Amino acid sequence: MRANRMKATWRAGGIAYGAWLCIPSSISAEAVAHQGFDYVCVDMQHGVIGYEAAVSMLQGISTSDATPIVRVPWNEFSIINRMLDAGAMGIIVPMVNSADEARAAVAPCRYFPQGARSYGATRATIWSGADYFGHANDEVACIVMCETQQAVEQIEGIVRVPGVDAVYVGPSDLSITLGLPPAPDNGGAYEDARLRIARACADAGVIAGMHANASLAAKHVAAGYRMVTVTSDIGALTGATGADLRAVRGAAVRPAPGT
Amino acid sequence: MRANRMKATWRAGGIAYGAWLCIPSSISAEAVAHQGFDYVCVDMQHGVIGYEAAVSMLQGISTSDATPIVRVPWNEFSIINRMLDAGAMGIIVPMVNSADEARAAVAPCRYFPQGARSYGATRATIWSGADYFGHANDEVACIVMCETQQAVEQIEGIVRVPGVDAVYVGPSDLSITLGLPPAPDNGGAYEDARLRIARACADAGVIAGMHANASLAAKHVAAGYRMVTVTSDIGALTGATGADLRAVRGAAVRPAPGT
Amino acid sequence: MRANRMKATWRAGGIAYGAWLCIPSSISAEAVAHQGFDYVCVDMQHGVIGYEAAVSMLQGISTSDATPIVRVPWNEFSIINRMLDAGAMGIIVPMVNSADEARAAVAPCRYFPQGARSYGATRATIWSGADYFGHANDEVACIVMCETQQAVEQIEGIVRVPGVDAVYVGPSDLSITLGLPPAPDNGGAYEDARLRIARACADAGVIAGMHANASLAAKHVAAGYRMVTVTSDIGALTGATGADLRAVRGAAVRPAPGT
Amino acid sequence: MRANRMKATWRAGGIAYGAWLCIPSSISAEAVAHQGFDYVCVDMQHGVIGYEAAVSMLQGISTSDATPIVRVPWNEFSIINRMLDAGAMGIIVPMVNSADEARAAVAPCRYFPQGARSYGATRATIWSGADYFGHANDEVACIVMCETQQAVEQIEGIVRVPGVDAVYVGPSDLSITLGLPPAPDNGGAYEDARLRIARACADAGVIAGMHANASLAAKHVAAGYRMVTVTSDIGALTGATGADLRAVRGAAVRPAPGT
Amino acid sequence: MRANRMKATWRAGGIAYGAWLCIPSSISAEAVAHQGFDYVCVDMQHGVIGYEAAVSMLQGISTSDATPIVRVPWNEFSIINRMLDAGAMGIIVPMVNSADEARAAVAPCRYFPQGARSYGATRATIWSGADYFGHANDEVACIVMCETQQAVEQIEGIVRVPGVDAVYVGPSDLSITLGLPPAPDNGGAYEDARLRIARACADAGVIAGMHANASLAAKHVAAGYRMVTVTSDIGALTGATGADLRAVRGAAVRPAPGT
Amino acid sequence: MRANRMKATWRAGGIAYGAWLCIPSSISAEAVAHQGFDYVCVDMQHGVIGYEAAVSMLQGISTSDATPIVRVPWNEFSIINRMLDAGAMGIIVPMVNSADEARAAVAPCRYFPQGARSYGATRATIWSGADYFGHANDEVACIVMCETQQAVEQIEGIVRVPGVDAVYVGPSDLSITLGLPPAPDNGGAYEDARLRIARACADAGVIAGMHANASLAAKHVAAGYRMVTVTSDIGALTGATGADLRAVRGAAVRPAPGT
Repeated sequence: MRANRMKATWRAGGIAYGAWLCIPSSISAEAVAHQGFDYVCVDMQHGVIGYEAAVSMLQGISTSDATPIVRVPWNEFSIINRMLDAGAMGIIVPMVNSADEARAAVAPCRYFPQGARSYGATRATIWSGADYFGHANDEVACIVMCETQQAVEQIEGIVRVPGVDAVYVGPSDLSITLGLPPAPDNGGAYEDARLRIARACADAGVIAGMHANASLAAKHVAAGYRMVTVTSDIGALTGATGADLRAVRGAAVRPAPGT
Repeated sequence: MRANRMKATWRAGGIAYGAWLCIPSSISAEAVAHQGFDYVCVDMQHGVIGYEAAVSMLQGISTSDATPIVRVPWNEFSIINRMLDAGAMGIIVPMVNSADEARAAVAPCRYFPQGARSYGATRATIWSGADYFGHANDEVACIVMCETQQAVEQIEGIVRVPGVDAVYVGPSDLSITLGLPPAPDNGGAYEDARLRIARACADAGVIAGMHANASLAAKHVAAGYRMVTVTSDIGALTGATGADLRAVRGAAVRPAPGT
Repeated sequence: MRANRMKATWRAGGIAYGAWLCIPSSISAEAVAHQGFDYVCVDMQHGVIGYEAAVSMLQGISTSDATPIVRVPWNEFSIINRMLDAGAMGIIVPMVNSADEARAAVAPCRYFPQGARSYGATRATIWSGADYFGHANDEVACIVMCETQQAVEQIEGIVRVPGVDAVYVGPSDLSITLGLPPAPDNGGAYEDARLRIARACADAGVIAGMHANASLAAKHVAAGYRMVTVTSDIGALTGATGADLRAVRGAAVRPAPGT
Repeated sequence: MRANRMKATWRAGGIAYGAWLCIPSSISAEAVAHQGFDYVCVDMQHGVIGYEAAVSMLQGISTSDATPIVRVPWNEFSIINRMLDAGAMGIIVPMVNSADEARAAVAPCRYFPQGARSYGATRATIWSGADYFGHANDEVACIVMCETQQAVEQIEGIVRVPGVDAVYVGPSDLSITLGLPPAPDNGGAYEDARLRIARACADAGVIAGMHANASLAAKHVAAGYRMVTVTSDIGALTGATGADLRAVRGAAVRPAPGT
Repeated sequence: MRANRMKATWRAGGIAYGAWLCIPSSISAEAVAHQGFDYVCVDMQHGVIGYEAAVSMLQGISTSDATPIVRVPWNEFSIINRMLDAGAMGIIVPMVNSADEARAAVAPCRYFPQGARSYGATRATIWSGADYFGHANDEVACIVMCETQQAVEQIEGIVRVPGVDAVYVGPSDLSITLGLPPAPDNGGAYEDARLRIARACADAGVIAGMHANASLAAKHVAAGYRMVTVTSDIGALTGATGADLRAVRGAAVRPAPGT
Repeated sequence: MRANRMKATWRAGGIAYGAWLCIPSSISAEAVAHQGFDYVCVDMQHGVIGYEAAVSMLQGISTSDATPIVRVPWNEFSIINRMLDAGAMGIIVPMVNSADEARAAVAPCRYFPQGARSYGATRATIWSGADYFGHANDEVACIVMCETQQAVEQIEGIVRVPGVDAVYVGPSDLSITLGLPPAPDNGGAYEDARLRIARACADAGVIAGMHANASLAAKHVAAGYRMVTVTSDIGALTGATGADLRAVRGAAVRPAPGT
């Protein structure tokens, strides 16, 4: 079976850097994947990406060395199982607010008896190799999101659910439920949460992950985060094309949408 | 942020007339939208429309002045959130049979603290403007369907759920659960329900909406309905092409399918 | 091999009535095809329809009894051959202005020695039957368009090109090149052309066809036309949905786009 | 309404043989359907098939005499209702582990009062005929999967749920939950389960179905199974193309992925 | 009819700045179009974009104020006519090396008698308005590429072909045929050609256009170029995401592919 | 730049075995490619495959070690250039009947001065590497088809056209133009042609290729053919699924369609 570069990086004590995809195109996915990221995530929750586009994007990423992962739209058994069958090597599950919800996220990621994943990994077996079934429970990453006040309060229990490989922080939603404006980073209660999550992960031997950008990466690494998303397709696209136009027109900067 | 023409019409005391889309094509969607409707609804429940087609249809509608709305397949958090992120300015939620179910429908339509919508309105922000987040709770319409006997019995509670903008009646399903044949209109218990829903909406300051056709519109308006769907793509298409053929062949009329 | 209902109608001395498709959807195609037309034409020239949509529309039509035909975008060998391989039972070739151009249109419609069609009718064989190759030269219809002044002047030569089954008149383009406004019907030089084409076809034993509508059909039949398109998807859709809205709003009629 | 060939075969006491589809293409679906199967199943659970591909595949199958059925990804009301509206004549529901779950599977398959299916069978009515609503409760097949140890233990209750037409065994998942390796067939506890399911079905007048292959079919028929899937697109494709290459290269056989 | 912002800018003596699209997605197209460009070009020659993707991208651009234009794959009548029917307001035609080839490029851009465009602007009429036919010859831009040594030698004749609105320089191909490496800009014979083209355009009252980037724009404007492409989706995407990763990793810069 | 495994095999004196794809799916393409072929060919001429499907299939193949090649629909500059830009590492050009036509086939395969390929290899550069331009003229394979009597008569001139890497025989079309029934193999004039082509190739140092199947491969290799297609997706799919059904039903064999 193909190795999971992201998990291998973690096992080697390294930091996995990733890119985030919201544009429903296998071509842009492939273009980003070949830049050298450790993982590339297809966002089916807030990206404009349905099942068929997601599969084509997994194929585009699969021509590179980056590990293809998927943020599913919801903590729902079926879509997690299907995206794994389609070749995702990791799943990010949004809005996991308790240990019970974390257990529900793990179930479709692991075959019996560690979980209840249904057998039939059609594309995963084609791409990863005929020995997929025997290694999938080890190689597939199950990553639960911590993005509400409630989740932070439960984090010490969540990280101890067997099968959880990593916790991934969503700064905007976490900020909102803490009464702060949505932003890539925040102070106050948000900063407390950020550190508490990192600590809980470290204590449990689980990876801490963060939805970030290039300028925030070093700060998160310093806090112990070892899965750091540093860019997104839609942000890069609107940011860079808009900047080119403003440079030519000499206009003032306006914020890039969608991130 | 772009204004919601449908809600603006309601605020001005007017009646919003709309079209219904079941054909999975951005071209037919755009063609219908340019006829001058106040809203155009992409039907993901009974239309032959998946996520990717729905998004392309929202784009087609977005080239016109009509407000794009979506009937989601089910009262499920994730699909409501995703269609709003994709640019729908209103959501019709089927089979809302209680105040609790209405609250569940509202949750993904409103950001915290009015609801629990997750942050990341990728296409909505691109199309509507960078100030989307600040105005979305006001501009997005949450519309719950009343289409079972049980829902009629709960209607006075449903309309008082905060965040519900309108109630939309589905005549065929409502008729069936009342023991009547599925039809665009009916008498008896159906007529009682139709009037009761309008009254409950009026009392609560909520808009009453009806899935109808051109010949029934005046009747519904007279009863206080201010959101009236007057045509559908599939009905118009099969009706008009079939009529052309029968006119030429002199054949007898047969009923148009699909409505 | 499946019979070609359109050609069978012609052989029996009847008139084939058809519908025209511009919307790129297999669902609308199937919906129209089930209304009872003799043929349904996928318009790859002015319809918003590429290769992949066209194939899916042929499949949609193939669930009905209507004969699926295609107007190709241009008198080009490869696209004619490919659409036949994909299951079209007839090809309408635009802008055929001379006997030489008619011969070029016939070539990809017939296997050697009547033409030069390349072997490999993948979908046609699946759908029509394993004996396709032996019958295709007889069952496939080759239909050349007459839609310029030059073509009218050459029509007596065009109709005598072996392998031409029918001539199909495009009223708008023919009108324009005759110095008239584009319209479904016209007088003057257009009317002369209309009658001359019918006569030339009758003399040569070739079918005369006309791009028309329901109200013009009887007039064309009276003139000897036996292939008459009486409706289109985009015209029906915009016409009927627009009429419904105007009926409700009491607004004035505006012309339907696209035809 | 079009007859359901699979159910007609059962009513006549015969055995329905079927094919399984995992490749998201209407062309491969149509190609397989024309081989003469009684039913062809679009697998939305483990096949690489989303909603839009599934609909196009139903259209491809609908050009043949085979009955189109769908395995939905999950026992979820909305997706069952939608696939029936899209023209599936039968639904296979995975992971049905109790009579309650079987009742949930039946609900969207039957209109009130036998179930709670919502009205609006857009494509089904176009393809099957205008009288669809009156016959759908009889003609649509509701098939629940038995693929866990728990389901086997509940099988006598499951088969007695009104509206269940058949039980379909998934050998791999059933094997796994019985502590056996995933395989098309197994001995021991699996064999006991296989016979118990057949007996329960026979006692209740319900059809027993099995996910199998050509070499296992006779064995299952002997045990009373009357719905037998004998091949799959992905298995046939990888098996036959791989065998051709190995034949030429003289290489050893390696197992076909994905089944 | 909708105005052509790009042509209006030219008429007002201004400079039109544009973006270039190679990614086959209506979402990325819409995202770029909303940055404020005067025109956005869908590249069907070197972009990874077929007909159906191109149409969806035109729809995405049509939700913004930018003028949608298309670079067709080749100087071929049919594809130019089709993209105009699909709503492109301008066409860039590659490899126009003589006045005759320029006349061939103009023909499908203009209705008779200025050209030979075939009637049937299905989507263009829906989107632009029912009066499209009367204004299209004025509003549609016909832009021919100058990208070979031969074309430069013929440029004074090319610019005088009636109906040519602009000449667009392709620096890479022009460089190659001048014996220089492909690059966004070059000296020597390339610089001579750049100035000669600008002069020929000025003399003939035709717009000079250039495929450029933000840093080259001022230089081209100084030379009289008034149609300047300043960015591309694929360059921006790979450039910005790659830069983010290198910033985090501290790695050396490698050149962005695809431009 | 990624190596071309097919050309490397030839340079090493080996025989390249390939598979042929007619099903428009990136999933079936990927499944076949992972069986171990040296090359996999996407057939845009007789396969049911348009531009967008072809690109997705190239991505599917690109996750394996097989060299992706494309049979274009016609000897037309633009489509050859576009498929190379999309990542095809070889092009098979149908119906090349003279040295002039072979030169036309070479032109878009080679950059100036060996040819006239236009610069802008968007996906090819992403996937193959930033040094693509410098190596593409060597690594891309230009393969012309010999499939008519006329081509056989011109073969000694065709093989000497600089830039032609291989000649590929199409047995069915060649048989037809020789007055024989279409078949994978034939005697008489066909056998003479088969040997003459091999000899001409050997004399010119060009590879001889053959569209064949597993049982014919050894015969062709013995005659000097070193590019041998041994299977096709559609033949394998219909052959193997049909065989499974017949095995179960005990029915007689009927021929597989489509090859």
